[in-house]
Amino acid sequence: MPTRLVECVPNFSEGRRGGVIEQIVAPLRGKAGVRLLDHRADPDHNRLVVSLVGDPEPIAAALLESCRAAVASIDLRTHRGAHPRIGAVDVVPFVPLRGISMEECVEIAREFGRRFNRETGVPVYFYEEAATRPDRRNLEDVRRGQFEGLCREIGAPDRAPDVGGSAVHPSAGATAVGARRFLVAFNVNLASRDLSVAKAIAKAVRASGGGLPHVKAVGVDLADRGMVQVSMNLTDHRRSPVHLVLERVRAEARSRGVEVAETELYGMVPAEAMLDAAAYYLQAAAFEHSQVIELRLLDGDP
Amino acid sequence: MPTRLVECVPNFSEGRRGGVIEQIVAPLRGKAGVRLLDHRADPDHNRLVVSLVGDPEPIAAALLESCRAAVASIDLRTHRGAHPRIGAVDVVPFVPLRGISMEECVEIAREFGRRFNRETGVPVYFYEEAATRPDRRNLEDVRRGQFEGLCREIGAPDRAPDVGGSAVHPSAGATAVGARRFLVAFNVNLASRDLSVAKAIAKAVRASGGGLPHVKAVGVDLADRGMVQVSMNLTDHRRSPVHLVLERVRAEARSRGVEVAETELYGMVPAEAMLDAAAYYLQAAAFEHSQVIELRLLDGDP
Repeated sequence: MPTRLVECVPNFSEGRRGGVIEQIVAPLRGKAGVRLLDHRADPDHNRLVVSLVGDPEPIAAALLESCRAAVASIDLRTHRGAHPRIGAVDVVPFVPLRGISMEECVEIAREFGRRFNRETGVPVYFYEEAATRPDRRNLEDVRRGQFEGLCREIGAPDRAPDVGGSAVHPSAGATAVGARRFLVAFNVNLASRDLSVAKAIAKAVRASGGGLPHVKAVGVDLADRGMVQVSMNLTDHRRSPVHLVLERVRAEARSRGVEVAETELYGMVPAEAMLDAAAYYLQAAAFEHSQVIELRLLDGDP
Repeated sequence: MPTRLVECVPNFSEGRRGGVIEQIVAPLRGKAGVRLLDHRADPDHNRLVVSLVGDPEPIAAALLESCRAAVASIDLRTHRGAHPRIGAVDVVPFVPLRGISMEECVEIAREFGRRFNRETGVPVYFYEEAATRPDRRNLEDVRRGQFEGLCREIGAPDRAPDVGGSAVHPSAGATAVGARRFLVAFNVNLASRDLSVAKAIAKAVRASGGGLPHVKAVGVDLADRGMVQVSMNLTDHRRSPVHLVLERVRAEARSRGVEVAETELYGMVPAEAMLDAAAYYLQAAAFEHSQVIELRLLDGDP
């Protein structure tokens, strides 16, 4: 049986006090079935972003410990930072990686939200795939007005939490818990200094402009490097795979007389995205992921 | 610290008697640090090929159990099969996969050969990277004359075993133990029925014809499918990566007015080979293997 793997990327509203950061991160270390891949504290954002991968149950158990520490130590009434936030535990997205469907991931998120509320009293909103109403799919809508705005508006019917009563937790605010696809950050650098070209290509390829589904794109000037960039987030790399996105950008660039200079895959990438790209360009139509030794090692004994 | 991983692909001279095959395979199941990826018995070859991946020490320990079973149950004096062989345990190659250098793999192979000889009395020849003399790098040279020929010639100075005395084990013969790179089986199918084109391209790309290093290639007729094939073994995919081999075949084919129809990666492939191909075609020059979530999961905690 394949291992069940999710990624979880909780964001906490603490990026400055090392002691508190350590209290939040400590429960995530050395737990069977939980791998702490990364944690980054940003003092300007005053925010801690953690990346966990592992089995859903032990991840949820370890994360609840972290959340209790965050709720006990972070006070939103005095918290200041550049990043929008509604709570001490601001967002908790679960991402299906391996052996788990999105539907199961939604259930994992909702169960986590209920347990988190039961143990901390913090009200919970479900977002993206875990949303219970269409106007909560978008995280920005859930976080509208931030902690301060939500304190005033939580009594309004359209802002009633999915779990918990109609008041924010006095110090720890509220928390958004969701399920979403893995996000691939993919930038294509163009051999051109003309920002208008990058902007035009970004507009042509992004979903909101009628381009490729699940692609967000903006044009960015890399003046230092004498290039411009189409900077993209692929929010569902299965439906809009990295290689097809690149081919679309290449075609759009060529039609404007510009070549792709290089690309950047930023941060973590699921093996699947790279294997699919390799198989596509190698024309290896019958290739299966299970042919990759390292992936076989992640699965249970046959 | 990264996990230390080797692949080991022992070949045993038994492909028919289910009971003996099971005695050989059983010690390789359910051992901590040892993953039995595959085992295939071929009755025509009268041979069993096993694929193990894992930590070198537990692999060696489990494999010695298998080898004792094979030595006890297989008699080369009565063994018949289509595949060349010198022993009950015919060949034992170790392949560095992850966190292990070829030099370390050579040491693992030699230590295994010494232990195997000590416990079974079967003489051992070291081959490929583990060879102690240039004329033993090639497995075919080590296996020259097979069991029957070796029985006569083992007393000759150039056939003296690397470990053990100058006589084969009466029933279990001798064993070749080696270290080599992972072998990638890569076939390129051409949109042509002209076998001479496939043969000419195979000759142009293979190492022995002055083509690409570590590439073996032959032209094959796929008459049923109306295509011809350049069938290749890449014996060092780091030095001659899959994608560069394909590009060379593509160029050779185009110069003859033929297109690549599709390719086949046969059997297991190391993640590295696919990731390098993806990064090449995606022009993601700065991409690192450690960005792949699944590979991070194979490593120890940071």
